[in-house]
Amino acid sequence: MGECIFCRIVAGEVPSARVYESDRVLAILDINPVATGHTLLLIKDHVPDLLGADAEVLAALGEALPRVARGVVTATDAQGCSVLLNSGRAAGQLIDHLHIHLIPRQSDDGLRLEWHPGSYAEGEMESYRQRIAEAIQPS
Amino acid sequence: MGECIFCRIVAGEVPSARVYESDRVLAILDINPVATGHTLLLIKDHVPDLLGADAEVLAALGEALPRVARGVVTATDAQGCSVLLNSGRAAGQLIDHLHIHLIPRQSDDGLRLEWHPGSYAEGEMESYRQRIAEAIQPS
Repeated sequence: MGECIFCRIVAGEVPSARVYESDRVLAILDINPVATGHTLLLIKDHVPDLLGADAEVLAALGEALPRVARGVVTATDAQGCSVLLNSGRAAGQLIDHLHIHLIPRQSDDGLRLEWHPGSYAEGEMESYRQRIAEAIQPS
Repeated sequence: MGECIFCRIVAGEVPSARVYESDRVLAILDINPVATGHTLLLIKDHVPDLLGADAEVLAALGEALPRVARGVVTATDAQGCSVLLNSGRAAGQLIDHLHIHLIPRQSDDGLRLEWHPGSYAEGEMESYRQRIAEAIQPS
């Protein structure tokens, strides 16, 4: 945990460009921005990822999100905002300390998710619905 | 609001594949999945987008997020999860009722954000830091 770059930023041991702070969360500029004003919203506690997080951790991040997003969009004259949370290497998470990307958007900015919508075969959707619903309920 | 497809789904007027429900939120399968098990987490109230949302709305969505994400990942044998919230047409939001995409991920699934990290010129990062910090603080 002493090696975690985000924990060191939270502790002030590593410099960062802070744009917002509360008792639970910190927002800083990403040093390699996908768009100017690209901001990271971090939980201050060392929580590795979404899948291992408690509900109240995400509630704290969610509570700060609209306020930080409005500030980012206003200050960058953006037309919208993409919010992205990657959980796990397979999803592109590079630093194992829970954080949310806020990316100010313009309609012509060229950013896009490789997004190829598919469809379910007959009966497949209900099968997945049951599996997911059952996987959520026991906890 | 009577025309909003997600309000009609919440009300049960339009069928959907429900995987989770609480008093504030509903999770359903996306009918055009980017990956099998692609799930949408909706706030039940008609809140158009992130930028116009109250803190408590995002706190309610955040509170449900880890539980729904764990269920989606478990049921689909995924290696990770991408969580995406698009706010505004420029960010790709198509339905004006606040919702969060949960996309189960595999390391070889070919999904990716067109992600071209840049860098700030000398002094530019501090300039943006100040502008964003000032835009967040007054509210």
